[in-house]
Amino acid sequence: MPVNLTAPTVLLPIAGVRLATAASAMRYKNRDDLVLIELDPAAEVAAVFTQNKFRAPPVELASANLHAATPRYLIINAGNANAGSGVAGMHAAEQTCLDVAEQCAVNANQVLPFSTGVIGELLDSNKIKVCLTDLQQQLSEDNWLQAAAAILTTDIVAKGQSKQVLLQGKMITITGMTKGSGMIQPNMATMLAYVATDLAIPKDVLERLLKETVEQSFNAITVDSDTSTNDACVLIASASAALNYDDLNDTEQLIFETALLELMQTLAQSIIRDGEGATKFVSVEVATAADKMLAKKVAMSIANSPLVKTALAASDANWGRILAAAGKVESDELNLANASLTVNDIVIWKDGSIHSSYTEEKGKQAFMQDEIKLLIDLNDGSESFTVWTCDLTHEYIRINAEYRS
Amino acid sequence: MPVNLTAPTVLLPIAGVRLATAASAMRYKNRDDLVLIELDPAAEVAAVFTQNKFRAPPVELASANLHAATPRYLIINAGNANAGSGVAGMHAAEQTCLDVAEQCAVNANQVLPFSTGVIGELLDSNKIKVCLTDLQQQLSEDNWLQAAAAILTTDIVAKGQSKQVLLQGKMITITGMTKGSGMIQPNMATMLAYVATDLAIPKDVLERLLKETVEQSFNAITVDSDTSTNDACVLIASASAALNYDDLNDTEQLIFETALLELMQTLAQSIIRDGEGATKFVSVEVATAADKMLAKKVAMSIANSPLVKTALAASDANWGRILAAAGKVESDELNLANASLTVNDIVIWKDGSIHSSYTEEKGKQAFMQDEIKLLIDLNDGSESFTVWTCDLTHEYIRINAEYRS
Repeated sequence: MPVNLTAPTVLLPIAGVRLATAASAMRYKNRDDLVLIELDPAAEVAAVFTQNKFRAPPVELASANLHAATPRYLIINAGNANAGSGVAGMHAAEQTCLDVAEQCAVNANQVLPFSTGVIGELLDSNKIKVCLTDLQQQLSEDNWLQAAAAILTTDIVAKGQSKQVLLQGKMITITGMTKGSGMIQPNMATMLAYVATDLAIPKDVLERLLKETVEQSFNAITVDSDTSTNDACVLIASASAALNYDDLNDTEQLIFETALLELMQTLAQSIIRDGEGATKFVSVEVATAADKMLAKKVAMSIANSPLVKTALAASDANWGRILAAAGKVESDELNLANASLTVNDIVIWKDGSIHSSYTEEKGKQAFMQDEIKLLIDLNDGSESFTVWTCDLTHEYIRINAEYRS
Repeated sequence: MPVNLTAPTVLLPIAGVRLATAASAMRYKNRDDLVLIELDPAAEVAAVFTQNKFRAPPVELASANLHAATPRYLIINAGNANAGSGVAGMHAAEQTCLDVAEQCAVNANQVLPFSTGVIGELLDSNKIKVCLTDLQQQLSEDNWLQAAAAILTTDIVAKGQSKQVLLQGKMITITGMTKGSGMIQPNMATMLAYVATDLAIPKDVLERLLKETVEQSFNAITVDSDTSTNDACVLIASASAALNYDDLNDTEQLIFETALLELMQTLAQSIIRDGEGATKFVSVEVATAADKMLAKKVAMSIANSPLVKTALAASDANWGRILAAAGKVESDELNLANASLTVNDIVIWKDGSIHSSYTEEKGKQAFMQDEIKLLIDLNDGSESFTVWTCDLTHEYIRINAEYRS
């Protein structure tokens, strides 16, 4: 069951971004599984895609189209990832873009296709095509909640958040939604995430903001170390607020960027809270490291260790596994001689020995919580990195043995 | 349950290597958990140890002693890894070496200590000390089977093998034993393995042979991607056969090296067959690669993917996960454009598409077997690497949630 996560009850509209959902029944019955998003012609779009080398055709096509033209429509389907589908899969993705373009009177390369679900099955583009008239008619700025639900696959809970900041007397809104639960260790992107703001943001700034915030949010989570073939994270600036990022002073830019980062982190963390089989939400912070990327490597090594994750699932204070998982990182830079380990404020390991104040009873109390913070201080520098993960339970095995079959 | 693995019924003696076992009751009841091995003064010893940076005190001490002197005794305990035990743990390991040295009238640095079991608990060296008189009295060349059983922890089945090759009219024997079941992705070594031969082998050759064979055996397996704090693999040449490796011709050296490699691979594979919760024995071969280390990286990425391993456990032909796990390897050299995937001789993916002859039924048949060979041809060179692994089941979670508690 999700860890301290409930579906959003309100997602604020972003003027210039209209959404619609429909049910194609390509895999799921009795629920919407298609989303069409229409963007104002003035909107700028930035996106990052999976770095997995076995990329799905829709990812290849979305990346190419984003490069070639300014996007006007995003079409998303859940249940079939159209991955491992080869030439036929690329044809299906191209056909979907053509169909949307014809329905909405734009060029095919102004459509970005996204697919998520089972790998290795061909997408039937006709199942999307027959829904397009309906989708276009229902486009509305008020449909974020429906869209957040329609993009889910093995997720239990819909994920989204809105934030507002007051800049130069104007209320600027950011709204985002995401999906993802398993096959989660995004690399430069995530499963699927769509974040929009009404602030006008030049494309180069938008790309920088996306890259910076993704690195500290979607690229800082892992459920199972597996990187999806279909990851994508899209940031949209609709420009409808008649205020431009470039006209903000430094403080105002920082206020906006902080709000954006917090929203992206909340979305990313919600994927972990809804991680397949998760019963614990776990922060792994590696601090006082010589190098930020080394800190991330150590944090990911701990977050991905099956032995750490099974101990967490059992609320077993088996802390030796945490240091062993840190130690397996292959790097000449890594020095654990001065490392300390603190779990939810309980100091366990320090100065090369179990800390004198530590007792098994204290450890038990710390590991019993459903929100656990593992802090590893390397005492070897001033850099740090935090990764969010969940535990590994029987339920994860059950879900992934049964999914697809 | 172990996959097609039964305990050895015969392990041949190696003249010059005497073993004894005893029960210290430090963790396990009603079974032996201590092994003392005595080596002939003429014996040469080579060893590789875990590259984990959170190494246990006995590993540090064994490594230092091996460097300082020619070993005469090996002392092994199971149930307590004496890892994460800090200064007090080092004192316990040193005390054990002193105790063995006094009992057996050698120098303390001629004793190599090995510990395996739970991490983070202090070893009580006195529990070993009180067994030493008994151990010394029972030393015998015929005790390999008892020793192979005494070093086990979460293993279900004892693991060992003997091989003989006729060289220059002399029957040369190699006997080895190993333990390991979880926390298995050895890096330059394995859990614990002890292999001995009566052939005389100069120390520099012994070290080369160990390194070469370990790379293709213990360094080519993974259960759960976790590297132990206590891994060690020891190769002993007792020289009792009155035949020296240096006096063999090229063909004879090859015969010996092949036998040694095969024995090391059998031992390494037996760890996988007895992998925690394993129901399948899986070979992952990445062939026609541009580079051997790249081939190993891709094979390990597949072998460690929780989504591949849960699909294997469920006998689900979810082959897209296999290519996705290959694709997540971060390397500019990796090119999957021409890759093909064959599972137990069933061609699934070739030339960028699902193979025309593939059917779900054929996939089902292949994935139902308990011995599964995944072959990924990159068609990008001539190098290859094979890794052995097992599936990921509920039983793995149960074992590692309950172990220690």
